[in-house]
Amino acid sequence: MRGFAERAGGFRPSAVRDVFEVAMRPGIVSLAGGNPDLELLPLQELGEMASRIIAEEGLEVLQYGSGAGYEPLIELVTEFMRSEGSHPRVEEIQMTAGSQMGLDLVTKLFCDPGDVILAEGPTYTGALGVFEGYQVDVRQVPLDEDGLDPAAVETRIRELKEQGKRVKLLYTIPNFQNPTGVTLAQERRAELVRVCREQDVLVVEDNPYGQLSFSGERLPSLHSYDPEAVIYLGSFSKVFSPGVRVGWMVAPPRVRKFLQIAGEAVTICPSVLSQRLVLGFMGQGLWESHTRRTAALYRERCDAVLTACREHMPAGTRWTTPTGGFFTWLTLPEGGRYDDAAQALAPAIDNGVVFVPGTAFHDDPTMGRTPGTDPAGGAVDDAGTRPGARNLRLAFSSVAPDRLTEGVRRLAEVF
Amino acid sequence: MRGFAERAGGFRPSAVRDVFEVAMRPGIVSLAGGNPDLELLPLQELGEMASRIIAEEGLEVLQYGSGAGYEPLIELVTEFMRSEGSHPRVEEIQMTAGSQMGLDLVTKLFCDPGDVILAEGPTYTGALGVFEGYQVDVRQVPLDEDGLDPAAVETRIRELKEQGKRVKLLYTIPNFQNPTGVTLAQERRAELVRVCREQDVLVVEDNPYGQLSFSGERLPSLHSYDPEAVIYLGSFSKVFSPGVRVGWMVAPPRVRKFLQIAGEAVTICPSVLSQRLVLGFMGQGLWESHTRRTAALYRERCDAVLTACREHMPAGTRWTTPTGGFFTWLTLPEGGRYDDAAQALAPAIDNGVVFVPGTAFHDDPTMGRTPGTDPAGGAVDDAGTRPGARNLRLAFSSVAPDRLTEGVRRLAEVF
Repeated sequence: MRGFAERAGGFRPSAVRDVFEVAMRPGIVSLAGGNPDLELLPLQELGEMASRIIAEEGLEVLQYGSGAGYEPLIELVTEFMRSEGSHPRVEEIQMTAGSQMGLDLVTKLFCDPGDVILAEGPTYTGALGVFEGYQVDVRQVPLDEDGLDPAAVETRIRELKEQGKRVKLLYTIPNFQNPTGVTLAQERRAELVRVCREQDVLVVEDNPYGQLSFSGERLPSLHSYDPEAVIYLGSFSKVFSPGVRVGWMVAPPRVRKFLQIAGEAVTICPSVLSQRLVLGFMGQGLWESHTRRTAALYRERCDAVLTACREHMPAGTRWTTPTGGFFTWLTLPEGGRYDDAAQALAPAIDNGVVFVPGTAFHDDPTMGRTPGTDPAGGAVDDAGTRPGARNLRLAFSSVAPDRLTEGVRRLAEVF
Repeated sequence: MRGFAERAGGFRPSAVRDVFEVAMRPGIVSLAGGNPDLELLPLQELGEMASRIIAEEGLEVLQYGSGAGYEPLIELVTEFMRSEGSHPRVEEIQMTAGSQMGLDLVTKLFCDPGDVILAEGPTYTGALGVFEGYQVDVRQVPLDEDGLDPAAVETRIRELKEQGKRVKLLYTIPNFQNPTGVTLAQERRAELVRVCREQDVLVVEDNPYGQLSFSGERLPSLHSYDPEAVIYLGSFSKVFSPGVRVGWMVAPPRVRKFLQIAGEAVTICPSVLSQRLVLGFMGQGLWESHTRRTAALYRERCDAVLTACREHMPAGTRWTTPTGGFFTWLTLPEGGRYDDAAQALAPAIDNGVVFVPGTAFHDDPTMGRTPGTDPAGGAVDDAGTRPGARNLRLAFSSVAPDRLTEGVRRLAEVF
């Protein structure tokens, strides 16, 4: 990498990139993607709304806007945050070109090379990509079926500090986690925030799926317990559209002003037109009915996958039971045909189905040497094996139920 | 900055931020902004186009897209590059959420803390903000009325290398430069690229204004002379809309693939809807007529400012004569009322006019100790003074001619 910065060594193609290319092949059932289904969007109405906005407000929405974001949308975000028990002020909110950008900015602002970010094990691959780009030392804490265990987080922070590490952030997806689909139990939330604050570790709460609860129930955000201790990342990608690239961050004002400066250095301002379209969609009440309908759609698809797993997967296979979101997480039984799900990927593709192997969601060189717990509800006996080796992420968000059933059947044939 | 990364020390509010807030006050003539004028955009037609696109292609344009960018727009960009003598292939192009993001990515990919970026003195403040955020050591080479002098660039690179510095990039805005309005003479272009290639310094060619030539004449891009030695940053913000946030980069394939990985870590993909709207605008031929009409508008405004300067500014004041773009650059005479234009800002605002002081465009601690040249056509005798102290940037892009005349008159009263 002659001539490049040292950090460029962390710019590696995502392990899941090839999988997504395969997923586009005709005839393949893709359990790999994590795309929202847009079939239920009222495209005609959205188009008419966009037309009015551009014709009537074009001089504003096609121009540069505020680096902090489009103020009417920021106000709507403050209202939205109240539904999870938070009460941020306008000056605590920073709009972004998607919550991925929020993750980039917070890492950029807080982490020097070698600093530690604690994350869930397994976690979102796109977060690992950001952290690697800033030469962060990622350490992962295993999940169980109720999410992160605050005591385990505290122990890990203490151990790392004893090793002389600077632990800067805890990155967590508390609701319908990517990739496991598990949700952090309500009774653990206050304690997790308290532990991190006490240890001077800022919590980064990434919540793209929280609105997609199958029951409609919404848990209080981590942010609601202590707004000084938590930076919240929000997204309109899963409930409206990823193609407009609009997300937001909530942070204490002393942090937010630096996030704005850092954000302006990257994009000057978030797209004003995109923000205005989101406001139109959210504000017209289209949003709530759309979210209810898509959550019902995802619930039906989740049921289809879990039913098919019960019918077709080999005995001893376990999986999580998501209460919202896009994903379930399979754990293969010991002594099956494959020790490493990644080895089953090529045969699965040959059999017309694709998934993401569990190893893609891990990047902690020290993990796997210690036994972990298992979000799918059993003990994991993976001491000495690659973390996530016996796991698969199955995404059900963008495939019709009968195709999901067929996909699981094809997958079961391989195992 | 306890808890923050070291680089956060570079996240300083822009020196021009306050100026832009003042510029919004009623009654003030703002010669500060650098916004394009959108009055000539066919908003009704654009709205109808957006409506059709969302209704007919919503499932694609509202979804996640390729990390490299929307392919039909990439193909149009390759055509566009030909108008400046470049012939990039599709795989050399990376779409971005505005060319500012391109600048962020190239700095992130190439520069470790302490590495040197050479820039023009003066240069775009937003570039300085990016470089500071990556703890880059910025060194600026003075401009004259024909832009950068290749021999001066070569000498500076050699000096810096002798001091043990790693000089990674030369950042330049060759056409209608921000803030001076000067254009790199055609006869210097090949030589500038040759010198940088020989010295193993990558050229970053930022060209947001190049299409806004008053005469319609377009010079060949630096990229056209040696595509291996130049990374080109393009923008749709000045000829179409900054509010959609769409730009592009052209880079050799070995570099571009890392730019894509780095870009995906920041925004996953550029907004598909925004890219589709740009394609619609460019493709329908709306673009060429719009560019011709806006260039004529800016030419008229430039004439108004220069005429008013001749009529009203104190004897000995000099200014550049732009052949395109948004800006002219004033140099105050020695022995006038103010040694530093920044000191005149408050009185100017009191008198109903605002501008950006020249010091905002400098960030090289070693500059100003050596005499420089002057893009406004005289020798600069500023040894020992802050670089840019006797300069003002006047933007004429978004103010009507009669208001420009009045603004310059008010400014002249202050000096």
